[in-house]
Amino acid sequence: MTRDQVTQLVLDSKRRKQLKWAQLAEATGQSKEWTAAALLGQMTLSAAQAGAVGRLLDLPADAVDGLQVVPYKGSLPTAVPTDPLIYRFYELINVYGTSIKELIHEEFGDGIMSAIDFSMDISREADPKGDRVRIVLNGKFLPYRMY
Amino acid sequence: MTRDQVTQLVLDSKRRKQLKWAQLAEATGQSKEWTAAALLGQMTLSAAQAGAVGRLLDLPADAVDGLQVVPYKGSLPTAVPTDPLIYRFYELINVYGTSIKELIHEEFGDGIMSAIDFSMDISREADPKGDRVRIVLNGKFLPYRMY
Amino acid sequence: MTRDQVTQLVLDSKRRKQLKWAQLAEATGQSKEWTAAALLGQMTLSAAQAGAVGRLLDLPADAVDGLQVVPYKGSLPTAVPTDPLIYRFYELINVYGTSIKELIHEEFGDGIMSAIDFSMDISREADPKGDRVRIVLNGKFLPYRMY
Amino acid sequence: MTRDQVTQLVLDSKRRKQLKWAQLAEATGQSKEWTAAALLGQMTLSAAQAGAVGRLLDLPADAVDGLQVVPYKGSLPTAVPTDPLIYRFYELINVYGTSIKELIHEEFGDGIMSAIDFSMDISREADPKGDRVRIVLNGKFLPYRMY
Amino acid sequence: MTRDQVTQLVLDSKRRKQLKWAQLAEATGQSKEWTAAALLGQMTLSAAQAGAVGRLLDLPADAVDGLQVVPYKGSLPTAVPTDPLIYRFYELINVYGTSIKELIHEEFGDGIMSAIDFSMDISREADPKGDRVRIVLNGKFLPYRMY
Amino acid sequence: MTRDQVTQLVLDSKRRKQLKWAQLAEATGQSKEWTAAALLGQMTLSAAQAGAVGRLLDLPADAVDGLQVVPYKGSLPTAVPTDPLIYRFYELINVYGTSIKELIHEEFGDGIMSAIDFSMDISREADPKGDRVRIVLNGKFLPYRMY
Amino acid sequence: MTRDQVTQLVLDSKRRKQLKWAQLAEATGQSKEWTAAALLGQMTLSAAQAGAVGRLLDLPADAVDGLQVVPYKGSLPTAVPTDPLIYRFYELINVYGTSIKELIHEEFGDGIMSAIDFSMDISREADPKGDRVRIVLNGKFLPYRMY
Amino acid sequence: MTRDQVTQLVLDSKRRKQLKWAQLAEATGQSKEWTAAALLGQMTLSAAQAGAVGRLLDLPADAVDGLQVVPYKGSLPTAVPTDPLIYRFYELINVYGTSIKELIHEEFGDGIMSAIDFSMDISREADPKGDRVRIVLNGKFLPYRMY
Amino acid sequence: MTRDQVTQLVLDSKRRKQLKWAQLAEATGQSKEWTAAALLGQMTLSAAQAGAVGRLLDLPADAVDGLQVVPYKGSLPTAVPTDPLIYRFYELINVYGTSIKELIHEEFGDGIMSAIDFSMDISREADPKGDRVRIVLNGKFLPYRMY
Amino acid sequence: MTRDQVTQLVLDSKRRKQLKWAQLAEATGQSKEWTAAALLGQMTLSAAQAGAVGRLLDLPADAVDGLQVVPYKGSLPTAVPTDPLIYRFYELINVYGTSIKELIHEEFGDGIMSAIDFSMDISREADPKGDRVRIVLNGKFLPYRMY
Repeated sequence: MTRDQVTQLVLDSKRRKQLKWAQLAEATGQSKEWTAAALLGQMTLSAAQAGAVGRLLDLPADAVDGLQVVPYKGSLPTAVPTDPLIYRFYELINVYGTSIKELIHEEFGDGIMSAIDFSMDISREADPKGDRVRIVLNGKFLPYRMY
Repeated sequence: MTRDQVTQLVLDSKRRKQLKWAQLAEATGQSKEWTAAALLGQMTLSAAQAGAVGRLLDLPADAVDGLQVVPYKGSLPTAVPTDPLIYRFYELINVYGTSIKELIHEEFGDGIMSAIDFSMDISREADPKGDRVRIVLNGKFLPYRMY
Repeated sequence: MTRDQVTQLVLDSKRRKQLKWAQLAEATGQSKEWTAAALLGQMTLSAAQAGAVGRLLDLPADAVDGLQVVPYKGSLPTAVPTDPLIYRFYELINVYGTSIKELIHEEFGDGIMSAIDFSMDISREADPKGDRVRIVLNGKFLPYRMY
Repeated sequence: MTRDQVTQLVLDSKRRKQLKWAQLAEATGQSKEWTAAALLGQMTLSAAQAGAVGRLLDLPADAVDGLQVVPYKGSLPTAVPTDPLIYRFYELINVYGTSIKELIHEEFGDGIMSAIDFSMDISREADPKGDRVRIVLNGKFLPYRMY
Repeated sequence: MTRDQVTQLVLDSKRRKQLKWAQLAEATGQSKEWTAAALLGQMTLSAAQAGAVGRLLDLPADAVDGLQVVPYKGSLPTAVPTDPLIYRFYELINVYGTSIKELIHEEFGDGIMSAIDFSMDISREADPKGDRVRIVLNGKFLPYRMY
Repeated sequence: MTRDQVTQLVLDSKRRKQLKWAQLAEATGQSKEWTAAALLGQMTLSAAQAGAVGRLLDLPADAVDGLQVVPYKGSLPTAVPTDPLIYRFYELINVYGTSIKELIHEEFGDGIMSAIDFSMDISREADPKGDRVRIVLNGKFLPYRMY
Repeated sequence: MTRDQVTQLVLDSKRRKQLKWAQLAEATGQSKEWTAAALLGQMTLSAAQAGAVGRLLDLPADAVDGLQVVPYKGSLPTAVPTDPLIYRFYELINVYGTSIKELIHEEFGDGIMSAIDFSMDISREADPKGDRVRIVLNGKFLPYRMY
Repeated sequence: MTRDQVTQLVLDSKRRKQLKWAQLAEATGQSKEWTAAALLGQMTLSAAQAGAVGRLLDLPADAVDGLQVVPYKGSLPTAVPTDPLIYRFYELINVYGTSIKELIHEEFGDGIMSAIDFSMDISREADPKGDRVRIVLNGKFLPYRMY
Repeated sequence: MTRDQVTQLVLDSKRRKQLKWAQLAEATGQSKEWTAAALLGQMTLSAAQAGAVGRLLDLPADAVDGLQVVPYKGSLPTAVPTDPLIYRFYELINVYGTSIKELIHEEFGDGIMSAIDFSMDISREADPKGDRVRIVLNGKFLPYRMY
Repeated sequence: MTRDQVTQLVLDSKRRKQLKWAQLAEATGQSKEWTAAALLGQMTLSAAQAGAVGRLLDLPADAVDGLQVVPYKGSLPTAVPTDPLIYRFYELINVYGTSIKELIHEEFGDGIMSAIDFSMDISREADPKGDRVRIVLNGKFLPYRMY
């Protein structure tokens, strides 16, 4: 059973059982953001987490095993995403990429924001002119090492 | 004078005068994030903003004019960025793109986060295990219109 | 059942039953343009709309469910479309893209035409020298926000 | 003098003289849409049109000649445009391409909308919830010929 | 049944029955060139044509229906074709493209040769030094419209 | 002096002197099609031909030499051409490529039409419904060799 | 049965029966190089050759038919090959391409080496420092035709 | 002085002085094939070789130095070459790549033909039906190492 | 049975039997690095090695045969890898590629490090600030041959 | 002065002064590997390091400043490198990428080897059968964070 097949089983069962990501996050004991990424085939679950998710979603044993294998990551079918919601983030990198680079280097020096020691939080911000999506990216700064 | 030439003049002068983005932001009256994007050739300045920046950076009149022209946006040389700092954001879209899509659709229904009615805030978060980069993305949710 | 499989079921049934897009639009209560996009896997139907379409096309319950899931959008197999009808629109962007940009910016300032708060109308315009296709694109202007 | 150099001269002079596209359109005797496309290097001017534009913009004789040469068309630097305003039109083709194809074929049979015997009209539509961009595309339907 | 499956059925049956394209062209009442393109999934047959071809090739009803649906055109698997016979035509565009453009514009002014109001004829030309392939392309000249 | 620079000199002088390709073809003693390809940097002129063209166009000695060097061929800036006139030929290959292959193989067996032992003729065909472009491609059939 | 399926049958049977390419070449009466290319789906066998190969490999009738159909050529999955043995030849073109061009043009004038009227011979050359692969490419020189 | 500039100087001087590659090969003491590759910017000359070539071609000291620097190799502007002579070799890899792989592996086992411990010989083979180009590729077989 | 199918069988069985790569390496008698590459479809096993692995993993005879066939190498789905672990190595080539080239050429002259006569060793290096991955690449230097 | 221009100055001066990377490394006080990367435009020097390098290489003040600016990293002109030495490393990723992933995950769990907290050491290993290049990559293991 490939990880893509596991992901499809998860999505089908989640829809049938009308579960929310927050409910699945209770099973993993992590945030809804990490849990969604993990169940969409991008992260590795512990045996306990996979078991809890498997019980909630009635997954077969093979799928529970599959959730514990480190996946080949990368969830998009093309280098430039075609889906408008996802494309907007690609556009932000295109438009703001050099600005983000300038500002991080000014503040921290040469290095990067980790995409591994990283967390993300997505929430709704009420606004009378139309509610807003608020995404907080939080990654450890990693300075380039001299040697 | 192309906008790329204006950007180069801005960067050269900023370096020579040892100015910070926050100081340039005082000239535009906007955030350091918007100001960096604008001066790196991605946004359009008003006449007053361009004038103030021009005085601070000793820019020629042509360049001050150039800052008021709507630019052809997109600041990166390749579809997949090679610079490690910028690549990490592309990686986040690759790894988390489908998760962000699931979570926004669960919360808001079908639509997107605007990349136009949008703001960004980059800050340092002190952490004993190594300081962290904190980036807040904030965009209006735009629901797909039925018609 | 993937959304592509739902789309194939819709097209097969529509052909067998000799239905027009305008008839399907009566079931959704929206325009033929929106309805075609939705049934071709690009928009999300409400439960009532999906039910009405399902009855008209004799779709299985799974497909009716599938129509209510937000799809991964993007309906074309290649970055540059090979189909001549669709390519002509790509050509228009290539030839007229900078003109559209100049004229919208001259009229509205820096910003974009929304592709989300957007509608489209396709009609036939009788013409003795050969009838014409008339397509009206109508999108909200979204100015870039300063912050 | 390459056509790109002519275009740059036109844009520089237009900006210096603070001319609108509608004013340049008076010189060509055509619409502002055709005129913008022509002066941005995508269409061929007649000798009279090139002369009138040249006088209005103080172009050198070489540039006036250059406007009368049939250009190598295509105004964008990349297959997928990075500029957000232009990208939205590419997105519309991606999302709506198959719908446009279905609806035109249902109405007209197999064939295409011409991108040559074609006109475009861009206007502002006042709207209390935010003004809208209205673009009318109008092209002759060309049926595939049997032979 | 997808159009590709229809095409495969056509090719299999044609081979088994040892039919020539000219014989199939008698069934459609058109040239062998148009008929080959249509049966290879690039053109739309009328009900009468599809019926006649279906009888000749013993196609199932579904396939006869499929031949009457406007196909998504484009018959090649890659942007640059790998098959040597087809590549040679791509090479001709690469080598002669700008010459064809110059000569058509010199003769006709700005515009294109239609690929829709178009016919093609392929024949053998006897030659003592080795027979030659003679291909006549014939398309209506379409001048760019001013508006 | 690169061949591209030679081509630019040729085009500039041709325009200034208002020469037709047929007049340049008299200087080379070949067809207007071969001559255009040669002077656009795709073919190699003999010393006599280069001299005659050089006198007609007042080219410097370096350019006359340059015309006699075998060029790196390929006259288009992108794999898929953006210019609408040239694109139509690419579209023909996409739509008709497999048909041409079928018909040539049916007539000649396995092999190709040469793009080297090849000639081309472009002419105007008067037509009351709009004049037509007629292009004759004529290449030696080259059968695959067994060995 | 597609040609790829025929190729797979050939390879499976060849392995099971432990046959060498030279033995298959006896069945076709051609060299091992041509025979390998033909059986790997790049060349067309005569009825007699296909029958002899079919008997040797116990191929079904459909596969014997398939070997006589002119294939869509091109045996590699990507434009730049990933397999190290095949990549080395791509590298030779990259490194030596312009040298080969210079030397052939110096010797023969403008034209090409045919890849159709072509043969290839691969052999082992004993060498005390390590045996060598020796590949002889032999193609007819085809001069560009003036016309 | 970049290596590309050195190459341009070499080609210009070689043309002006009407030298053959074989004459330049006398200066390097190597074959005409290696010498062409080296002077076209793909190989590194020893000080003595660079000096001898420099004297023959009247190169400036900088260029003589440049010939001794290891170049960034790769002589072609695109991944798929557009020049017909060079393309034919790319086509051979596409058509014969898997055959070459099969035959070398059958003879030698798993490994590659070296493109470094490699030599090439290009010669003319007289043939009454048209002279032929004969290219001998000769590379050491390198077996994959187990470890 | 394709090699990809063999690889899938190997991975499934390894997971079910909870074997480590080091245990499989005992069966091949080679290092864990070579063994992993071989069983992931990149190297060719001897009959003895394939048999030992097959017994350990309970592979069917077809799969044991498959492991002895020289594979088409290249284990990644895209030219630029999307998986973050693998991407980091691509990034190292992008960032350090020219440095590695300079340092090897300074030490050895013109030539390459072999990727065939090559071994690799991956180990854990304990470090109080966080353990480190240590990878030793070891390849024979191959000097370019003059000839 | 762009960073590329600084790099060119460094390389020109290093060649003229016949300096080794190890000598430049004495000026930076770091390894030859880090120093080469930094001077080839991939790392940021401190003021003291830039000053020391500037004195050794007689760089102008502008270049000394340029060495202290964080560069846009990525040193290669194409996604797949054409230079054979650098390509071999790309090939190693293609062939061994999945093996490296498996072995690191088996040893460390899900995470990556850092390309930032990273060092590299390149050395010559004497070998009677031909000296070897030995490259040690050493990067901190970064486990994926749960949150």
